[in-house]
Amino acid sequence: MTEGSPRHCVALSGGVGGAKLALGLSRVLPGDSLTVVCNTADDFDHLGLRICPDLDTVMYTLAGISNRVTGWGQAHETWSFLEALAHLDGEIWFRLGDRDLATHVERTRRLRAGETLTDVTAALCGALGIAARVLPMSDDPVRTVVLTETGELSFQHYFVRDACTPTVSGFRFDGIDAARPSPAFLAALEDDATATILVCPSNPFVSVDPVLALDGVEAALRRTGVPVVAVSPIVGGTAIKGPAAKMMAELGMPVTAVGVARHYRERDLLDGFVIDDADAGQTTEIEDLGLPTLVTGTVMETLADRERLARETIDFARGLDHGRGDVAEAVSPERSA
Amino acid sequence: MTEGSPRHCVALSGGVGGAKLALGLSRVLPGDSLTVVCNTADDFDHLGLRICPDLDTVMYTLAGISNRVTGWGQAHETWSFLEALAHLDGEIWFRLGDRDLATHVERTRRLRAGETLTDVTAALCGALGIAARVLPMSDDPVRTVVLTETGELSFQHYFVRDACTPTVSGFRFDGIDAARPSPAFLAALEDDATATILVCPSNPFVSVDPVLALDGVEAALRRTGVPVVAVSPIVGGTAIKGPAAKMMAELGMPVTAVGVARHYRERDLLDGFVIDDADAGQTTEIEDLGLPTLVTGTVMETLADRERLARETIDFARGLDHGRGDVAEAVSPERSA
Repeated sequence: MTEGSPRHCVALSGGVGGAKLALGLSRVLPGDSLTVVCNTADDFDHLGLRICPDLDTVMYTLAGISNRVTGWGQAHETWSFLEALAHLDGEIWFRLGDRDLATHVERTRRLRAGETLTDVTAALCGALGIAARVLPMSDDPVRTVVLTETGELSFQHYFVRDACTPTVSGFRFDGIDAARPSPAFLAALEDDATATILVCPSNPFVSVDPVLALDGVEAALRRTGVPVVAVSPIVGGTAIKGPAAKMMAELGMPVTAVGVARHYRERDLLDGFVIDDADAGQTTEIEDLGLPTLVTGTVMETLADRERLARETIDFARGLDHGRGDVAEAVSPERSA
Repeated sequence: MTEGSPRHCVALSGGVGGAKLALGLSRVLPGDSLTVVCNTADDFDHLGLRICPDLDTVMYTLAGISNRVTGWGQAHETWSFLEALAHLDGEIWFRLGDRDLATHVERTRRLRAGETLTDVTAALCGALGIAARVLPMSDDPVRTVVLTETGELSFQHYFVRDACTPTVSGFRFDGIDAARPSPAFLAALEDDATATILVCPSNPFVSVDPVLALDGVEAALRRTGVPVVAVSPIVGGTAIKGPAAKMMAELGMPVTAVGVARHYRERDLLDGFVIDDADAGQTTEIEDLGLPTLVTGTVMETLADRERLARETIDFARGLDHGRGDVAEAVSPERSA
């Protein structure tokens, strides 16, 4: 990569883990060089409000107002609304903080007025002073249904109300066939300015797969001339956050970085993979899948961790050859360790 | 009135002043003997939420959770929602507290699910442990438009955003022709158990007139066999709360208790009138209108004030003869002082 080359990065993200890497990316890339595309299959309508958990986590994280204790919602939050709602015998299983509520109310108002979710998100991010572009994967409703041994559950019922307890047998993305990717998302994938496409360390099944399942997205990833690199959300056999590891086990997959790599590689979607030092022993197995592998610290505890992983991942991607047909040949040992 | 007689009281109310008397009534009458009918022409849709200021003020007051400092909203309120909304460049001229918001969100959710405003109000009051029955005047939308020298204003724009500054020339109640009184309201007016009908010390133009303007309400008040008594919201030439006095002046009416008495009396709606000690000098003039008049302390600063005024007003009403045709003859001096 030389100066003057395309430098734009498109990152596909779910919630917490993706948001951490997105924050790192936003700090190591020029302000107009990052597009974060967020899963919206977790979105749901609750109390008459449109809630978009992944968009909000990314937005709050990039704006520096995320709640690092809970992993969702805003910092310095208060809970008067929920207390009062409890007194009114309202539904309180989904914890809506008072500050967070402003996002849902304003978003819902704008959507009802006819704005697309892409436009609404741009307006909210603009108000919050976010330089990166944050996009919903789609302006159309897609809703993850979790197939469990005790029946089907809407994602938030599975995730929040039932605390991921039911055993998972699969997933369905209602609305996926009719949904179109946000036009800005597809345009970003195909933009000449785009130099790297990253899959953040997010849940492969319920955060990344809905994005990939949108019409035209996998084709665009296979067609693109720029490297596509994923960061493993599984570290040392567990997920840093969320139910990814539990889901993999219940689906009969190995709960390893290899398992994640294979999940994407089977669909010929990646040019490279990033795993944690703890999983260095899996490097050969992943490279045998045809995926050059970067081994580094992927657990992002500090802001410096986020920035370092972002920088290393970008550099790793830029060092990879484009295209997948010749991936195996293109990999040289020094690149993948 | 003897024991075993009908004892039910129906009180027509706006916001703060009406709510104070309603609270007094709720404490001197048996729990199931009070129906408070609230103006809903101040209601509006804001940020996608249905806001019902008078219903809420009455409900919060009866539940003991009203904010006595502001005169609206809930006590122990927090403002995180509004702060966050400001950061999102949202509309913040209407002050929605975090606790208050729960009412609007839950009400809006229930209305969208198909419940009537009467049903929603009953559910909210039930959750808050309110023994009295609180009714919206109508389940249909009626919206006060304030006609001013600078043009028409929706009520909340006039009242809150513009702080009642524009000079008023009249009012229009949009939707009034199509709106039906809440069936429970009409039934209460005609119920054999109803012994007294009170018009609370609320703004005659924007709080009480919309209630009276509903199809069938004035006819029911003229037809009823029980005494109808109003408490003057004007004391010593001013309104305890709100723009009633300013409106009367701008409309060219005397800003007096007499002015209010005449406003209702012209339509043959009252059997008696209650004025403050400060206005005792107007007693003869009001009685000359054919309205027996109770002179007492009507400024309700303490809970004891509210209870005393409620008791005195009920006793005064019960001492009046029914019907208006013979009001002038029925009035005896000792009744009216």
